Formats: sequence, C-alpha cells, structure tokens
Amino acid sequence: MNISHIEHIGIAVENLSESIKYYEEILGMKCYAIEEVVDQKVKTAFFLVGNTKIELLESTSPDGPIGKFIEKKGQGIHHIAFAVPDADKALKQAEEKGLQLVDKVSRKGAEGLNIGFLHPKSTLGVLTELCSK
Amino acid sequence: MNISHIEHIGIAVENLSESIKYYEEILGMKCYAIEEVVDQKVKTAFFLVGNTKIELLESTSPDGPIGKFIEKKGQGIHHIAFAVPDADKALKQAEEKGLQLVDKVSRKGAEGLNIGFLHPKSTLGVLTELCSK
Repeated sequence: MNISHIEHIGIAVENLSESIKYYEEILGMKCYAIEEVVDQKVKTAFFLVGNTKIELLESTSPDGPIGKFIEKKGQGIHHIAFAVPDADKALKQAEEKGLQLVDKVSRKGAEGLNIGFLHPKSTLGVLTELCSK
Repeated sequence: MNISHIEHIGIAVENLSESIKYYEEILGMKCYAIEEVVDQKVKTAFFLVGNTKIELLESTSPDGPIGKFIEKKGQGIHHIAFAVPDADKALKQAEEKGLQLVDKVSRKGAEGLNIGFLHPKSTLGVLTELCSK
C-alpha cells in the first residue's frame, strides 16, 4: 500500500468556530484553511502539526456522516487518513486483501485530494481513509 | 504549549497479535517494539509512520482504562498524543488555561516518555496526551 505518513486526523466537532479557538488559543496551532465539502455535508478547518494535519469537521446537516457520528458517539476523533502514492491502487489492494471498502474508487475530498474510505468493520474499528494528491 | 508534532495515535484493540498482523500484512507497516505498561494495564505495540507512531493498546485486565474503553465503545482510536518540549510545563499551562487534567504531573509512559493526559471533557471529546522525552 506504500503508506508514507499520516496525512491527517479527522476530528468531529459540534461548533467549528469555537473549536478553532480551542486549537489556536489553547493548543497554539494555526488554522490555515477552512473549506466546505458539500458532498460530505461538512465544513472543515485545517491545522498543520509537524507533517500531519488535523482536520476539524463540523456537520452542515444532521443527516450527514459527521452529524450522525456526533449524535451516536459525541464529539471526538472520527478517522485517520494515510497518505499513499495512488489512492485508487491502494483501495484496490485493500479490497484484494479482503477489506471492506466504503469507496470502491476514489473521489475528491478536501484540499483536492483523491480519497477513499475503508470500513471500520474490517480495520479493527478504525475508520480509515487513504488519500493521494 | 509548543507542540512540535503528533507523537503517536493510540488505538485500542482486543487482540494485540492479531492486530499487529493487520498493520503489518495489510497496511504494510513494521512493528518495532512491544512493551507492557503495568501501571496502565496495557500491552502496547509500536509502528512508525512518517514522523508519527501508531501505538496499539491491548488491555491486560478488564478493569484497566483500555478494557473499559473497549467494553463501552468497542475497538478504535483511543487518544492522540502531542509531542512537547516539557510535559510538566505543558500540563501546567493547560491547567492555567482552564483545561481539566487527568494527570496533574507527568508520569512514565511507554518508551520511557514523560506523559500526562488532558480530560476529554475539556478537549472537545478528544482524549489528549502530552509527552516529552
């Protein structure tokens, strides 16, 4: 699969602007981008920590994936995203190794990345994203 | 707080040896250390991904923190650990900024690091560890 690093950690939050305040004022990070991903019904905020990003996710609709996650589990870490050279190739390899895919082929995610998710049922409970430029 | 990078992501697993197999054979990572932290009632396995570690955590007792976590929420991402120059100083700063601490002062964690946890109630649902060498 050739994972090079953790591209980002996705964290579900109830209120994006209050959460940005926490990450900036308490943890001392700097939000460098805010982006809405209409397809996923989320508004995102990005922070760079070393070589990895933190992606805060606020749902724009109660029936979006983040809205449902927060309703069920509350705010918290939602997924881990690994950087790979080619998301489609990695998704195919994952399927060949018996993993259950959420996305059979990659789609466009935040920051223009090609992304695809593996189902947490086959990844030891960790919602896992594979992404490439 | 001077966070330099994500030191590790802690992931609660039911069975350490089966989980190591998944991370090695499916994700292609290499387990470089296995360590028991008696104090925390866990057996841990470490993988390096870029500049960040993945720390798998198997409970050695149902009444340990990981045992309780899995009973309540199932396997999955348990915490995020930020590297700081001085864990005690960072814990003190966090308290001054109104965060609730799990550890008032740092203690020894896996790999000999000085570690301390912030309570998820004051960190937007994310169990947060601060650690230094």
